[in-house]
Amino acid sequence: MNDEFFMRRALELARRGVGRVNPNPPVGAVVVKNGEILGEGWHERYGGPHAERIAIEKARGKDLRGATLYVTLEPCDHYGKTPPCTDLIIESGITRVVVAMEDPNPLSGNGIKKLRDHGIAVEVGVLREEAAKLCEIFITYVKYRRPFVALKFASTIDGKISDFRGNSKWITDHYRLKSHELRNKYMAIMVGANTVMTDDPLLTCRLEGGRSPRRVILDGRGKLAGGGWRVFSDDVDVYVFTASDAVYPDNVKVFRGEWDVDGVLAKLYEEGIDSVLVEGGASVLSQFLNVADVVHVFFSTRVLGKGLSAFENVEYSLDNAPRFRVERIEHVENEVYMELRPCSRE
Amino acid sequence: MNDEFFMRRALELARRGVGRVNPNPPVGAVVVKNGEILGEGWHERYGGPHAERIAIEKARGKDLRGATLYVTLEPCDHYGKTPPCTDLIIESGITRVVVAMEDPNPLSGNGIKKLRDHGIAVEVGVLREEAAKLCEIFITYVKYRRPFVALKFASTIDGKISDFRGNSKWITDHYRLKSHELRNKYMAIMVGANTVMTDDPLLTCRLEGGRSPRRVILDGRGKLAGGGWRVFSDDVDVYVFTASDAVYPDNVKVFRGEWDVDGVLAKLYEEGIDSVLVEGGASVLSQFLNVADVVHVFFSTRVLGKGLSAFENVEYSLDNAPRFRVERIEHVENEVYMELRPCSRE
Repeated sequence: MNDEFFMRRALELARRGVGRVNPNPPVGAVVVKNGEILGEGWHERYGGPHAERIAIEKARGKDLRGATLYVTLEPCDHYGKTPPCTDLIIESGITRVVVAMEDPNPLSGNGIKKLRDHGIAVEVGVLREEAAKLCEIFITYVKYRRPFVALKFASTIDGKISDFRGNSKWITDHYRLKSHELRNKYMAIMVGANTVMTDDPLLTCRLEGGRSPRRVILDGRGKLAGGGWRVFSDDVDVYVFTASDAVYPDNVKVFRGEWDVDGVLAKLYEEGIDSVLVEGGASVLSQFLNVADVVHVFFSTRVLGKGLSAFENVEYSLDNAPRFRVERIEHVENEVYMELRPCSRE
Repeated sequence: MNDEFFMRRALELARRGVGRVNPNPPVGAVVVKNGEILGEGWHERYGGPHAERIAIEKARGKDLRGATLYVTLEPCDHYGKTPPCTDLIIESGITRVVVAMEDPNPLSGNGIKKLRDHGIAVEVGVLREEAAKLCEIFITYVKYRRPFVALKFASTIDGKISDFRGNSKWITDHYRLKSHELRNKYMAIMVGANTVMTDDPLLTCRLEGGRSPRRVILDGRGKLAGGGWRVFSDDVDVYVFTASDAVYPDNVKVFRGEWDVDGVLAKLYEEGIDSVLVEGGASVLSQFLNVADVVHVFFSTRVLGKGLSAFENVEYSLDNAPRFRVERIEHVENEVYMELRPCSRE
């Protein structure tokens, strides 16, 4: 049993926290002695105990001298919502710590040094890539001080997101499932006023045990004034960006002014939102195309002919067209799913 | 060594004839005795000897009593360009024949009966599906008395086949290779007059040893009158469909009249063309969408925003949009290739 084996287990545990800990990163930890797992844990909810703490507490009563702690992210060394994990590790008697990646937060990141100063052997970089992928939202959030931006759209093979009548309700089972997984993963979801007026969507995550994303509605002209829409009708936080004087229901947080893409993202960062899933329509997708960290595309193998394309509001010539690389491709029955990453920012 | 093993070899041989024998089907044959291959062959060129004949001649001088012939298609029993294969098989002393599929041509197909009448054991259906796939062009051609129709287009992830300036020259290596494989496979290639005027394409197959498809140009209004275009400038057969009185170069076969899709296909059938690759532009693709037997799509992972879609000349609502199933999907670097088959005609 080598380090990768246990780190893989720690990553597996970490994944259980996806969507439940934002704007914290998902983290997993495993305590091992003589090849035996004595305790394991993951960061389960925002404000709750860290993965290391849970794993060590699970091993309580056992002699941890000679034990190794595997943790997917550098342990914290500061008082946040919880006391520092470093102190706990040092007190526990653990003699070796394997860390997948350093804390990307420029404001923290003293954990490894602190452990070493206390004579603990620390190894860094085991399954680093997997860990970084799992933490990509957190990395973007703390390094670039803006939310991670995910675009999502569903289109036919001829690139149409709705037919010539504006109809776009053609969700299939596979698409629905993936779509709700994305809503669970990202902390907020963004749509334009037109999408609200056309579909009156709920924008909730309907996965069992899923968490609905906060709502960000771009309503420059105040078309949604007065409410009555389903996005305003439950207890999920709603943020509206508008240049109008429109009055919204009391539960809506309204940001007034002339907002551009960077302004919206800066404001969401201020609000502690680490990630946003831009769902549409074409006008909003077009605006956020150039800041996308990932694009999720679902292809339905139909042809619609005339209709609306996802990015109809921008125009590129072949020389300057944004390019992407295929990070993942899945094919289930008559649906194809692609996860695309921008080439320009790599 | 079982029947499937040798039939697989026969299919492998048959594939070497793809693109070289139209409007005949590609066929392969293997003669086996006591588990040893005594002769093999494939139909190499239109008008040339059949696969069975070549395989049996390769085994000349050997005692074929007790031998088995594996052949991917029912042997012919009529005088065409060559004498009937059945007679040759009967004379050879071969005692068993394994056939992948019956001859789909309603005008022939007496081979199996003839062999059995002469006391030869005949088994039918080994790897039938693979054989039928390999012969799909021939099956369509003889059963439905029209060419097999393949559509092909290359689009961005937002469904654009050209940018807002009309530019569409964004061929990549992978795309180029596949594209020329298709030109080799199908007997004719079809484009509209606008494509000729915009790109002045050659429409040749540039694979080593490849065969260029005959050209079918839809030029209803006679825009290409007088010639000067590269499609008229070499020794590949060219067919032009036009409603005009336009004069074309002497080497062009001109069909005058008001042509619709069925009329064009019927005429191509009369001309002995078993398959046509419809390459564009949007107007021609739109016209032939509903008769497509297969759609080959190449996705380049770019975004163009405003621009032309492949089927911009038709409009479907979601209820009646043509649907396809994914027969094959390949992902090479930043290109995705899909082979789609219509759902409706299955």
